[in-house]
Amino acid sequence: MLSSKKKYIVNGSSGIKAQVFYPVFPAASYTDSSDDETSPRDKQQKNSKGNSDFCVKNIKQAEFGRREIEIAEQEMPALMALRKRAQGEKPLAGAKIVLMETLGALGAQCRWAACNIYSTLNEVAAALAESGFPVFAWKGESEDDFWWCIDRCVNVEGWQPNMILDDGGDLTHWIYKKYPNMFKKIKGIVEESVTGVHRLYQLSKAGKLCVPAMNVNDSVTKQKFDNLYCCRESILDGLKRTTDMMFGGKQVVVCGYGEVGKGCCAALKAMGSIVYVTEIDPICALQACMDGFRLVKLNEVIRQVDIVITCTVLITKARLEQNFSWLEKVGKVAVFISKEASLRTPELTWERVRSQVDHVIWPDGKRIVLLAEGRLLNLSCSTVPTFVLSITATTQALALIELYNAPEGRYKQDVYLLPKKMDEYVASLHLPTFDAHLTELTDEQAKYLGLNKNGPFKPNYYRY
Amino acid sequence: MLSSKKKYIVNGSSGIKAQVFYPVFPAASYTDSSDDETSPRDKQQKNSKGNSDFCVKNIKQAEFGRREIEIAEQEMPALMALRKRAQGEKPLAGAKIVLMETLGALGAQCRWAACNIYSTLNEVAAALAESGFPVFAWKGESEDDFWWCIDRCVNVEGWQPNMILDDGGDLTHWIYKKYPNMFKKIKGIVEESVTGVHRLYQLSKAGKLCVPAMNVNDSVTKQKFDNLYCCRESILDGLKRTTDMMFGGKQVVVCGYGEVGKGCCAALKAMGSIVYVTEIDPICALQACMDGFRLVKLNEVIRQVDIVITCTVLITKARLEQNFSWLEKVGKVAVFISKEASLRTPELTWERVRSQVDHVIWPDGKRIVLLAEGRLLNLSCSTVPTFVLSITATTQALALIELYNAPEGRYKQDVYLLPKKMDEYVASLHLPTFDAHLTELTDEQAKYLGLNKNGPFKPNYYRY
Amino acid sequence: MLSSKKKYIVNGSSGIKAQVFYPVFPAASYTDSSDDETSPRDKQQKNSKGNSDFCVKNIKQAEFGRREIEIAEQEMPALMALRKRAQGEKPLAGAKIVLMETLGALGAQCRWAACNIYSTLNEVAAALAESGFPVFAWKGESEDDFWWCIDRCVNVEGWQPNMILDDGGDLTHWIYKKYPNMFKKIKGIVEESVTGVHRLYQLSKAGKLCVPAMNVNDSVTKQKFDNLYCCRESILDGLKRTTDMMFGGKQVVVCGYGEVGKGCCAALKAMGSIVYVTEIDPICALQACMDGFRLVKLNEVIRQVDIVITCTVLITKARLEQNFSWLEKVGKVAVFISKEASLRTPELTWERVRSQVDHVIWPDGKRIVLLAEGRLLNLSCSTVPTFVLSITATTQALALIELYNAPEGRYKQDVYLLPKKMDEYVASLHLPTFDAHLTELTDEQAKYLGLNKNGPFKPNYYRY
Amino acid sequence: MLSSKKKYIVNGSSGIKAQVFYPVFPAASYTDSSDDETSPRDKQQKNSKGNSDFCVKNIKQAEFGRREIEIAEQEMPALMALRKRAQGEKPLAGAKIVLMETLGALGAQCRWAACNIYSTLNEVAAALAESGFPVFAWKGESEDDFWWCIDRCVNVEGWQPNMILDDGGDLTHWIYKKYPNMFKKIKGIVEESVTGVHRLYQLSKAGKLCVPAMNVNDSVTKQKFDNLYCCRESILDGLKRTTDMMFGGKQVVVCGYGEVGKGCCAALKAMGSIVYVTEIDPICALQACMDGFRLVKLNEVIRQVDIVITCTVLITKARLEQNFSWLEKVGKVAVFISKEASLRTPELTWERVRSQVDHVIWPDGKRIVLLAEGRLLNLSCSTVPTFVLSITATTQALALIELYNAPEGRYKQDVYLLPKKMDEYVASLHLPTFDAHLTELTDEQAKYLGLNKNGPFKPNYYRY
Repeated sequence: MLSSKKKYIVNGSSGIKAQVFYPVFPAASYTDSSDDETSPRDKQQKNSKGNSDFCVKNIKQAEFGRREIEIAEQEMPALMALRKRAQGEKPLAGAKIVLMETLGALGAQCRWAACNIYSTLNEVAAALAESGFPVFAWKGESEDDFWWCIDRCVNVEGWQPNMILDDGGDLTHWIYKKYPNMFKKIKGIVEESVTGVHRLYQLSKAGKLCVPAMNVNDSVTKQKFDNLYCCRESILDGLKRTTDMMFGGKQVVVCGYGEVGKGCCAALKAMGSIVYVTEIDPICALQACMDGFRLVKLNEVIRQVDIVITCTVLITKARLEQNFSWLEKVGKVAVFISKEASLRTPELTWERVRSQVDHVIWPDGKRIVLLAEGRLLNLSCSTVPTFVLSITATTQALALIELYNAPEGRYKQDVYLLPKKMDEYVASLHLPTFDAHLTELTDEQAKYLGLNKNGPFKPNYYRY
Repeated sequence: MLSSKKKYIVNGSSGIKAQVFYPVFPAASYTDSSDDETSPRDKQQKNSKGNSDFCVKNIKQAEFGRREIEIAEQEMPALMALRKRAQGEKPLAGAKIVLMETLGALGAQCRWAACNIYSTLNEVAAALAESGFPVFAWKGESEDDFWWCIDRCVNVEGWQPNMILDDGGDLTHWIYKKYPNMFKKIKGIVEESVTGVHRLYQLSKAGKLCVPAMNVNDSVTKQKFDNLYCCRESILDGLKRTTDMMFGGKQVVVCGYGEVGKGCCAALKAMGSIVYVTEIDPICALQACMDGFRLVKLNEVIRQVDIVITCTVLITKARLEQNFSWLEKVGKVAVFISKEASLRTPELTWERVRSQVDHVIWPDGKRIVLLAEGRLLNLSCSTVPTFVLSITATTQALALIELYNAPEGRYKQDVYLLPKKMDEYVASLHLPTFDAHLTELTDEQAKYLGLNKNGPFKPNYYRY
Repeated sequence: MLSSKKKYIVNGSSGIKAQVFYPVFPAASYTDSSDDETSPRDKQQKNSKGNSDFCVKNIKQAEFGRREIEIAEQEMPALMALRKRAQGEKPLAGAKIVLMETLGALGAQCRWAACNIYSTLNEVAAALAESGFPVFAWKGESEDDFWWCIDRCVNVEGWQPNMILDDGGDLTHWIYKKYPNMFKKIKGIVEESVTGVHRLYQLSKAGKLCVPAMNVNDSVTKQKFDNLYCCRESILDGLKRTTDMMFGGKQVVVCGYGEVGKGCCAALKAMGSIVYVTEIDPICALQACMDGFRLVKLNEVIRQVDIVITCTVLITKARLEQNFSWLEKVGKVAVFISKEASLRTPELTWERVRSQVDHVIWPDGKRIVLLAEGRLLNLSCSTVPTFVLSITATTQALALIELYNAPEGRYKQDVYLLPKKMDEYVASLHLPTFDAHLTELTDEQAKYLGLNKNGPFKPNYYRY
Repeated sequence: MLSSKKKYIVNGSSGIKAQVFYPVFPAASYTDSSDDETSPRDKQQKNSKGNSDFCVKNIKQAEFGRREIEIAEQEMPALMALRKRAQGEKPLAGAKIVLMETLGALGAQCRWAACNIYSTLNEVAAALAESGFPVFAWKGESEDDFWWCIDRCVNVEGWQPNMILDDGGDLTHWIYKKYPNMFKKIKGIVEESVTGVHRLYQLSKAGKLCVPAMNVNDSVTKQKFDNLYCCRESILDGLKRTTDMMFGGKQVVVCGYGEVGKGCCAALKAMGSIVYVTEIDPICALQACMDGFRLVKLNEVIRQVDIVITCTVLITKARLEQNFSWLEKVGKVAVFISKEASLRTPELTWERVRSQVDHVIWPDGKRIVLLAEGRLLNLSCSTVPTFVLSITATTQALALIELYNAPEGRYKQDVYLLPKKMDEYVASLHLPTFDAHLTELTDEQAKYLGLNKNGPFKPNYYRY
């Protein structure tokens, strides 16, 4: 129910304020047919307690949002378990909120904003604002709104965050650029996106990373759930909701065979699509071959495919234009699960046909159907399952706790992977949902294997 | 885009009026967040030409509906081809409308109503009304509205239908009950649903069928597309849109392993669910075994499954209550792809949590999440792909033409299957969409096989 | 363990002799590295009781064959059940033998021969001969041997069969041609192969069928098991044993998308092959599309595929040569699951590389790897699972009983399908193997559905 | 065609002798029905050049083995490419031989022995001996033969190996135990098995590893091909060849969900089996859940499953006995893809039913069907595809070259993973087989991504 995409700052000690950029909730239904055209920035809203430190679409939707949160509760088993084990006494309300409240229970104060202009579920944002959280997010923000929201989170009189929980790196980047001094009091960054992690490693390489950072994007559970397992479901969901197309018999090219590409390919193959793959990495390419996908270059199949799905940052505007200029078939659908491709150029005409569905028209009349304006389809046009959010949120909570409480010196100004044992812990918290029964090592077996009975069970280089 | 579920009457000769009960269009987005609470029956609406012989939610949505129709055009290749081959000169507008206009071009007049109280896409209904078609349908009709709409279609001063195109048999039933004399001038019935066909065979057995009827439900293309292939996609779509659940690891029991059950099982297995099957027919049961599903009785797994999907009319209220009374797990999701199960009993409390999502609560507090109020999930909560509609509509059009033009005596007061050659023709019209290249028999091969080069290619008993 | 391919004549009443052409048992291991080059026809062999009315490879292998039979016992549940229900007191020995003994218990006498020159398991044939059954079959018969064996079965002094159980129609054809008078006393033919059934329908059409014939090939259980489910497994087995190839990433074209083709395609897709399909029937073609296979003409892909699998009788010599003459890639593998394709022409050179693996070399040096000499791969190079044989044998036994005991006049000189209720009965006998629990209709449900509680459950036109 | 399992020592510089323990070739057909009962150790054999420094089953089979090698050639593309790129002038003979000759061309001398008592293909061993390679291996060695062969490889007058290529660690272990002084001149060990690598890490931990070792088992291509992709195919092959069972509907428990378990599960699920999984690692357990397998403890399902497959070293004798003592169903099949389980205890009776198929009988009469005597099924009862061997052999060759030529100090007395770039190189050499077209980075893209255009493309922690 809630987005896996958020940016926030968490201030982890009691009595300390926290700045939160938080969940942007993809709606159960991705279309929001509200007729209210007023920008949230121009509205004066207060929650029922009179608080106005937030900016959402419509605070009156809070009650509906609260119901959504309650639905979500049932799919967040690990966060509940985590809370119980930490002897929290309050019942868990819902996804991210649970996380927030968990952090809150530990003394954190949070502020939050969206990390994707389409991924906010207005009702849930309203519910959070109503509960007193400073939320700055609504579905359908403009680029300018987006940065305005981030700034409203960061730039608050008398409030200094000491931890950042980011998704995409935009928040981190904003602080680096506008408020570099803030880093003096920041104990660490927890980042969950590929892009954000990439930026952090670049900062680290350049010697510019000034606080420790935890790369939770590459934890196993995060990788497999946010990417492989989640995309396996959300690609179908996103395509179906926007286009109502039938998958059977469709020809599809998927650019990139990493975890996201693997998930998309598996799902579409299972639904009867014919799938082609492009890759630059020979290992992933060989995997695609063995999994039954023809490995091609984009230009070899662009004329014949019905759908183009990019799961890579590599489909730059130039390449796209080069390829799409060959288009002959009106109605080809293009989907982007990366942020890089932009078709907002002067010579291309855009025509909106449905919410999040545009025709992009070349000067010669050829056109493609572009979904989510070229932004992340899985976040914009489908719903990230609550269960996945539970995994991500649990991972983040553990990372924040680890980073915040680590003894001086354990973490330097570098990027770290989540310790494997925590990764295993997150997984084990989620097993009961499936009524899954883990086998326990006997003492004899543990000794034979040279393992601790409680893990970690695999060497660090193990690939799963 | 348009529903495969409709009831209409077609009056096939020029100059003859036709009564049409027509498409109920599942929306691209299944939620319609309009705040307008007025019943369409209480509204005075006219289309732009001043015509008011229709009843839809909001005639003002016609333009949006027209856009939807245009999107649909691209997935209706066979109807286009059919039109072209019949030298029709008008461009095809869209799905059902195409069908209507095709029939119209042949001289038919139509009136139509919905066959499912949730399956109408208001905007498209508006567009049709705007175009002058007498449409009586809106999303969210009450039971009473439903029959009112049917009656408004049938019971029209000075208008006598001579063909019925039904889906579910409610229309046929209504005429049998209220206006039996109408059958004197009716040349035939084309019926596409399991239930409707079942009713027709019962009428025939009882010697009460007074006109020839064409069972298009059991044509191969109809069976496989409306049931197997369509349900394979729509079960995922319907579950996801209503519940945002993750399929991976979920335990599901599917009641019935006919075409619909096979489609549901295949899709859920592919998405990582653990699927159990119940069956009464040993042949279908053995198929389930060979396809990798445990064959169980409902009571053996009801406690452990997360989702119950019924693809049979056999889950009667009694059986359900008997089984669900064992429920221990709040949050179990029940899905019905049949009309028979009703949980509207005095002792059960219903609580609406989202559009088409209810909690049904037993006196002892156990509850299930019921989707689409126990009605057909695939029609109510997901979208029937336009491509499937194209197949069904093409099949129906051919059946209507066959029945209407058959020489006296070819069809008696009985139920007939679509001739195999027409079935093959429908399939061949849809192959170009997939850039599929059929191999043609050489004269020598045809002779060797004892076949006509143009088909039919299989004996009547062939199962596909 | 035992072949599904056999030809026999059963003489069903006590005191009547029967001529049997019986199972040719595909070996567990398809290679038989015996060095004994003497033709079985030139050997003088007796079983331990001094009987010599048989012709097998080596009667001394009987004990090993008996062990194979005992292994088979455990996968023949329905035959066991059938026997038990018929109050048989002897324990079931094994597959076909079980069938023979079942028939024997009913008074039948049998003689048998192989129906495929590669499909005999010598050891099992020896065990049967040792038990006193007149068996004429060995692995690797020549064409001439094949007909000699059939004749030795039919042409026996003082022995007149009264029922024929055939597979492929060769036996029936032989009797028609050589001993037409035999038909005067024959009560019926039970035929299980596509080809044999095709021949029977042709005879019937031409008015030349002089006894009733039961088409068991088109019973549901037979169709799905012998074709769909069995080929799904045996295509992998046959390819692997002969070539040791890896399936992942291989490009394969499958000619024909009937049950056999569907099984092959599903298995290879699951193992990571890229599969193309050719078809002449638009309905099967559309199914291939929806199942995710590109529908092509053979010449469009012949250059790029690694493997050609024909599941149709349509790949005539001419077409093959025409296509294969384009071959550019040494090592392309050709597999035939039909009898029609012959590459035994003067201009082609054959080079044996392994048992059942030949290189067929074109004059210009291009070559293909041909498996099983172009004969049925699934029978020649793999093993038909005992479970499948159990289904086929049970079906045949029921068909023989039905035909033999039917009251005068029930069956005319025509070809009949197995009554649906028997089909369901065969299926139900096999469910316990899977610990599968069938749901039973309540009286109320049966009445609601208008069905008998014990079936048949589906109309005759139902496709499964 | 050739085994992936071998132990050899390679002496890498010109003029230096090398001791080789080499490929044991699983046969195309796993049964070898030769009647020759004489132990190879008792035979006096010479090859055609009069050389007798080898010990194989029958040197006369060399010609047949050579044909097998030629068949294999076509599936070893990368080794061919490697040879070509290294300007080798001799044609490639075949798999391992290719590797040997490649090493030979670089100056190596080799001796070899089998690493699994069942995995030798006698004919190929003969062909190698005929070519002058000192081979000590035959199918069906006893434990004593096994160590005797290893010793014959190592303990040779006047010959000192300087590199070890091991598989399983038995050879390394033997030298450690018997000839520790040999390590003084050994430059490194290349080890490819899980067990062998595990032993090396233990040695390293204990400070006893006295030379650098390269862990090629954990290279990506090795992992995925030898384990995931290969087992996906060989589990089906091994089960089918030994038991002829049908997979559809079978209930199977797979112990362990690492790469091997994942491959087995995927294949069996695809063939219609119902698969349960046991795991100790919560992360792998969660993957099993998401992939659609019920996670259980062995004792929960042991009564109901038909097949037990262990893909872990954890199923110790004690656990097995404890579990199997509950067996109620004769005919349960047990498969071990690990070396640890032993059922050779005094109270259990073994009864051979087929080659590599035994009944193991408990005192109370319960029995299981044990395959390959509890040894690695995939090596013993099926064939490792030549393509997989090509990948492994290429990887090993690169590892040997790297280790042999590395400048002093690059590698210490520790265990190393193969550098990622080599891993990618191995993959890229295999892409042409699939006609797979890799996309190349443009300069602009490479810069944007901060990557070298030629790789490595992923961070070291990437999991594929």
